[in-house]
Amino acid sequence: MAEFDNTFILDFCSGGNESSSDVQALCQVAGLANGTSASAAGLVEGINTFFLLFAGALVFLMQAGFAMLCAGSVRQKNVKNIMLKNMLDACGGAIGFWTIGYAFAYADNSSGDKTFIGGKNFFVNQLDESGGAWIGFFFQFAFAATAATIVAGTVAERCKMSAYLCYSVFLTGFVYPVVVHSIWSADGWLTAFRDDPWKGVGVIDFAGSGVVHMTGGATALVAAIVLGPRKGRFYDEDGNALETPASFPAHSVALQVLGTFLLWFGWYGFNPGSALVIDNAASASTSALCAVTTTLAAASGCVCAMFTDTIIEMMATGEASYDLTMAMNGALGGLVAITAGCSVVTPWASIIIGIIAGWVYIAFSKLLVKLKIDDAVDAVPVHFANGMWGVLAVGFFAEPDAMVTAGYNDVPGVFYKGDGKLLLCQFVAIIWICAWIFFLMTPFFVVLNILGMFRVDPLEEEVGLDISHHRGAAYDMTSAKKEDVEELMEHRSSKHGKVEVPKEVQKEDTA
Amino acid sequence: MAEFDNTFILDFCSGGNESSSDVQALCQVAGLANGTSASAAGLVEGINTFFLLFAGALVFLMQAGFAMLCAGSVRQKNVKNIMLKNMLDACGGAIGFWTIGYAFAYADNSSGDKTFIGGKNFFVNQLDESGGAWIGFFFQFAFAATAATIVAGTVAERCKMSAYLCYSVFLTGFVYPVVVHSIWSADGWLTAFRDDPWKGVGVIDFAGSGVVHMTGGATALVAAIVLGPRKGRFYDEDGNALETPASFPAHSVALQVLGTFLLWFGWYGFNPGSALVIDNAASASTSALCAVTTTLAAASGCVCAMFTDTIIEMMATGEASYDLTMAMNGALGGLVAITAGCSVVTPWASIIIGIIAGWVYIAFSKLLVKLKIDDAVDAVPVHFANGMWGVLAVGFFAEPDAMVTAGYNDVPGVFYKGDGKLLLCQFVAIIWICAWIFFLMTPFFVVLNILGMFRVDPLEEEVGLDISHHRGAAYDMTSAKKEDVEELMEHRSSKHGKVEVPKEVQKEDTA
Amino acid sequence: MAEFDNTFILDFCSGGNESSSDVQALCQVAGLANGTSASAAGLVEGINTFFLLFAGALVFLMQAGFAMLCAGSVRQKNVKNIMLKNMLDACGGAIGFWTIGYAFAYADNSSGDKTFIGGKNFFVNQLDESGGAWIGFFFQFAFAATAATIVAGTVAERCKMSAYLCYSVFLTGFVYPVVVHSIWSADGWLTAFRDDPWKGVGVIDFAGSGVVHMTGGATALVAAIVLGPRKGRFYDEDGNALETPASFPAHSVALQVLGTFLLWFGWYGFNPGSALVIDNAASASTSALCAVTTTLAAASGCVCAMFTDTIIEMMATGEASYDLTMAMNGALGGLVAITAGCSVVTPWASIIIGIIAGWVYIAFSKLLVKLKIDDAVDAVPVHFANGMWGVLAVGFFAEPDAMVTAGYNDVPGVFYKGDGKLLLCQFVAIIWICAWIFFLMTPFFVVLNILGMFRVDPLEEEVGLDISHHRGAAYDMTSAKKEDVEELMEHRSSKHGKVEVPKEVQKEDTA
Repeated sequence: MAEFDNTFILDFCSGGNESSSDVQALCQVAGLANGTSASAAGLVEGINTFFLLFAGALVFLMQAGFAMLCAGSVRQKNVKNIMLKNMLDACGGAIGFWTIGYAFAYADNSSGDKTFIGGKNFFVNQLDESGGAWIGFFFQFAFAATAATIVAGTVAERCKMSAYLCYSVFLTGFVYPVVVHSIWSADGWLTAFRDDPWKGVGVIDFAGSGVVHMTGGATALVAAIVLGPRKGRFYDEDGNALETPASFPAHSVALQVLGTFLLWFGWYGFNPGSALVIDNAASASTSALCAVTTTLAAASGCVCAMFTDTIIEMMATGEASYDLTMAMNGALGGLVAITAGCSVVTPWASIIIGIIAGWVYIAFSKLLVKLKIDDAVDAVPVHFANGMWGVLAVGFFAEPDAMVTAGYNDVPGVFYKGDGKLLLCQFVAIIWICAWIFFLMTPFFVVLNILGMFRVDPLEEEVGLDISHHRGAAYDMTSAKKEDVEELMEHRSSKHGKVEVPKEVQKEDTA
Repeated sequence: MAEFDNTFILDFCSGGNESSSDVQALCQVAGLANGTSASAAGLVEGINTFFLLFAGALVFLMQAGFAMLCAGSVRQKNVKNIMLKNMLDACGGAIGFWTIGYAFAYADNSSGDKTFIGGKNFFVNQLDESGGAWIGFFFQFAFAATAATIVAGTVAERCKMSAYLCYSVFLTGFVYPVVVHSIWSADGWLTAFRDDPWKGVGVIDFAGSGVVHMTGGATALVAAIVLGPRKGRFYDEDGNALETPASFPAHSVALQVLGTFLLWFGWYGFNPGSALVIDNAASASTSALCAVTTTLAAASGCVCAMFTDTIIEMMATGEASYDLTMAMNGALGGLVAITAGCSVVTPWASIIIGIIAGWVYIAFSKLLVKLKIDDAVDAVPVHFANGMWGVLAVGFFAEPDAMVTAGYNDVPGVFYKGDGKLLLCQFVAIIWICAWIFFLMTPFFVVLNILGMFRVDPLEEEVGLDISHHRGAAYDMTSAKKEDVEELMEHRSSKHGKVEVPKEVQKEDTA
Repeated sequence: MAEFDNTFILDFCSGGNESSSDVQALCQVAGLANGTSASAAGLVEGINTFFLLFAGALVFLMQAGFAMLCAGSVRQKNVKNIMLKNMLDACGGAIGFWTIGYAFAYADNSSGDKTFIGGKNFFVNQLDESGGAWIGFFFQFAFAATAATIVAGTVAERCKMSAYLCYSVFLTGFVYPVVVHSIWSADGWLTAFRDDPWKGVGVIDFAGSGVVHMTGGATALVAAIVLGPRKGRFYDEDGNALETPASFPAHSVALQVLGTFLLWFGWYGFNPGSALVIDNAASASTSALCAVTTTLAAASGCVCAMFTDTIIEMMATGEASYDLTMAMNGALGGLVAITAGCSVVTPWASIIIGIIAGWVYIAFSKLLVKLKIDDAVDAVPVHFANGMWGVLAVGFFAEPDAMVTAGYNDVPGVFYKGDGKLLLCQFVAIIWICAWIFFLMTPFFVVLNILGMFRVDPLEEEVGLDISHHRGAAYDMTSAKKEDVEELMEHRSSKHGKVEVPKEVQKEDTA
């Protein structure tokens, strides 16, 4: 059918043409069709903005998830410190990504050349004021903040606040945006979103197993190596290696579980939201598939990690025990691993990806302990190791129909008769991210360390950072004074009695 | 107007027909109308997928709500155990519902015959790859997980992990799907979604007071009876009945309140989301009404339960006290009760349903204590009793206009001059669900019990399940060592002083 | 083009007219266009309802945020009390706003006259049953509940439950609706939503820095003054002023941080949701801009407040410390301050508004202490002071293009060459809200106080409200008994050993 030409119809319908009833009818229909078309265009803008607002808000809530998970995982004496870091990197992420990060990550040049880094829209000030542009920034900021916050947990209980601020601005402002640009910007050198992607395929990292989780996780790994383990974790006072590493119990499992659920919930923004639009059937299908694969990978990762651990322990001790930490980190590992491929794999494959993610988590976690690398919350096995697994898994499991629906080309994974080109691209992406992070962050952290800006004073570490640097402990569970409660009881019993005395007070009483 | 026939227009507009300007104009308008129509169809897919993604994610967050509420309600020594159960039934629900549950629940046969159970789409593998199908599975999984998790709280502090795993797979894989099929599938024998529903009406259980909450709650009741009360709750060491049942205080009210708010929040996915689509004015109206009735029933249930309890206590003791647990469970009772009828009752009716829900909760909770049935979190009064009340209430309060808007027929409740047919259907649904659950779950739990797989060892129960089975307590509130803090203080005071010593440390100091 | 006239087309297309293929084609296209137009209208209803359901649910979750923040901020002995208040004002808000509040706030008269208060739709019963109307009530209820709950924190630890109930019904039922009516109803005397707004401009308070936060915060201020400080805060037992005010440490920083993140998350419903519709490009743009400015103001408020405080303390003590409370309240202050102008200021301006919000918070917080006004959670500096700053800031920073997109007229702020009219309007709004609240609430609280209904008994305050009025303490952290654990260890070690004994138990052991 003919391309719609507003001018032509306007001319046609103006003036004396409307004399005949045929023409009159036609022009009325034209008016209706035109109005509806404009209204549908408005709806498209509206629904896509709303979709990213929803998804971005959920991703933002993952900050709360990380804060709860990390705080629950550390010792009581460092709770304020880790939570403040979580809050500040959300804020720093916003400011760093607004000033330069977004510009470095996404600015595209009209020439279509591959570039290493973007270079306009600093301070988000060259965006035209359309909903799509603003909301795109909001959604991407939430991802940047996630990348930064992954590091917080690993270096908890011993990293200086000033060092934390330095690297989180560096990460969100420069290091992370370069990775984003290479894989998610149409100008990136590894992206699948070009007419001529590398190897004719490009890297598929739909929601960022590599871009976000490997970047954060690799940074955490470098930091943990340079920073060294917490006092007493692998070595005694005199620096001799302990036979069995000391385990520092999480101060609150309740906070850990809350954090895990908030993260899982937020992932329904992270993965389905990475479809970016939801105004058509293909995007809807992609987004819906993401919700399903995300769920199944988390579930299978959780179940696999926990029972594998139970079996290992049972063989060692003969006693069946169920480790909640394994369940939580297994679920998170599954979530990280499905993030790259959530839109291009089948539910079956997502179950397999999740199961292997559970094993990857356990293996890498044990490896770190063996290497005496101290990760206070096991963020490296969850985000870095499973980030790698997730990127790699796409090379095996990418299903061609789903790929096309998701807007990729149809070069499938090797299990769907792919020729290995996709797997090669995925592999190169892993190398690239590792190299970029290790190359940049190692000297960065080493210099911080040499300058004495990285690690807190040993005595402060012993006392805990909350008392040393944050004006006191995170909890004050002091209960009512015994004598006051007694006075109240007496006072009331003279009238009508009955006050329940809490156990703690009773205990003090008998002491 | 004529049915649109694309071929006809294409023929008409191709070739020489475009000579006259009339025809040219017509064909341009046809092109525009056609494009807009396709774009609107895409928007319909998109918005409905997005709607269920939003609603399903909120329902999923209810898992966090249940975990926090249950964990807060139990004693400190069983926190890890209950949280692990909550996490595992979300995962088990995903896997069980994916493998067989969804197939049993929803597969419809094209013949239109009533069936007892569905039988295709196992592993969700016969779904065509459209957004609607995937997201429908996601939304329904979240409901299945909810049904399973309701049981966790009731049997807390004494149920073996293995038993829990067995029944939660059995429940989500088979028991619950059959109930779903009977009431929500177009092939079900009690459903309202057929041309020829039972009694010309069928059962109205919009979001599942019966299907989800009664199913979970009835299972919890059977489990509690077979499992018996916690040690020391109703009987002393020698098995003699206590004069007053011992109350085991919740270990953290803060977690309970958090859980309650998360559940309430999640209910805005549960109820309004059950409209399933939001692409037209009728669905929008239904969904919006659900948000209002859900809010009002929760509010009135909360206020009613708390003040009723305050008055009862005041008459007994003369002292006014306000019980937070009553407020929380009253709100949850109101939410459960409005779930069946949220789309078909007026705001007025929702207030009445909420008030009665508050009373139903209190009465049933006291009844359980009288019968010496031990429900660690009062899930049976909240979900089972108010599930029944909710299903029944529809028979009284269903308003014909709202029913039609919500897609039901217009046979109203007895307070709107209904002839009682709807009330009969609702009553039969209650009988059916109770019978199905009691018939299946009683032998199931009895056998588990006989095999010694149901209840933990008494000593383990006394010690608590966290230490017995989950490698240690859920909390470690150890604070900084006194001597370290003192050293730090001295060190600093020599320079510029000022460290706040937390009270706990000071106390130890003086001890 | 001609206005579409359905009758005309129907006549034209019925009967013999369809003989010619031209006419047949035209009528088919008309049918298609007509169907699509209806379907687009349905989509508009659907998406707008969905948008407010999403936004309202997020705003509702702020209740959980306030509950956690307030509970975390008070002493352990008053946790149940404050949480119950938070829960009851959500419920009271629902009931109060349903009965009369919504009617007072929004009922518009067709005459278009300015009115002081609305007067129909009591019990929301004259709403036509369209999605838009129901969901509008739901969204507005969530705002009313927010206004009420702001007060809870300030008067915590000493306010009677009965007084709390009285004023929260009074506030949501009457006081707040009048403020809403004046600024947000088309009939209000200060509103910008009229053809003839005051001074040709009217007040711009997009999401309610003034309407919601100042109203709640001003009420809190009046209440705090009348109620007096907590025992021991500013005066010793004999009523002599303390040299340094005693600071009562927050009982759980973890709950505070959780609450802060939940509030920030909820604000993505509060601010972007205040666009009310999302079916067109302008609303989408407005909503998206709100997400960006909200984020940046929160981030800059957080960073500014914390580092300003660090610098102040460093100059006083020489020791760098980082106060988490400052970071949290700075972020919340930034969020409150951007609420009025989020849709009409640029990202740059939102950063400046946030920075100043951080300073406003610190200054006002110190001022309150100087004036010996005791605010248990610093709600007055956050909501009242920054509410004022937010309303005022619009007068400086409102950018004309964004204003027009957001549906306001184009009289800009003084930094965009405005003539000061808008600034005047904003200033008058501040005066009006302060005057209305102080005029109404001062006598209200004074009378409550005289009647002895406002403040709890001093002994009850000392004991804490949880034991005095809520049947016992909020926590029971009693762990497993030493002898039971030992027995279990022995029992197992005889077989295969290994039970981890929690530290608390070990400690008791050695005691």
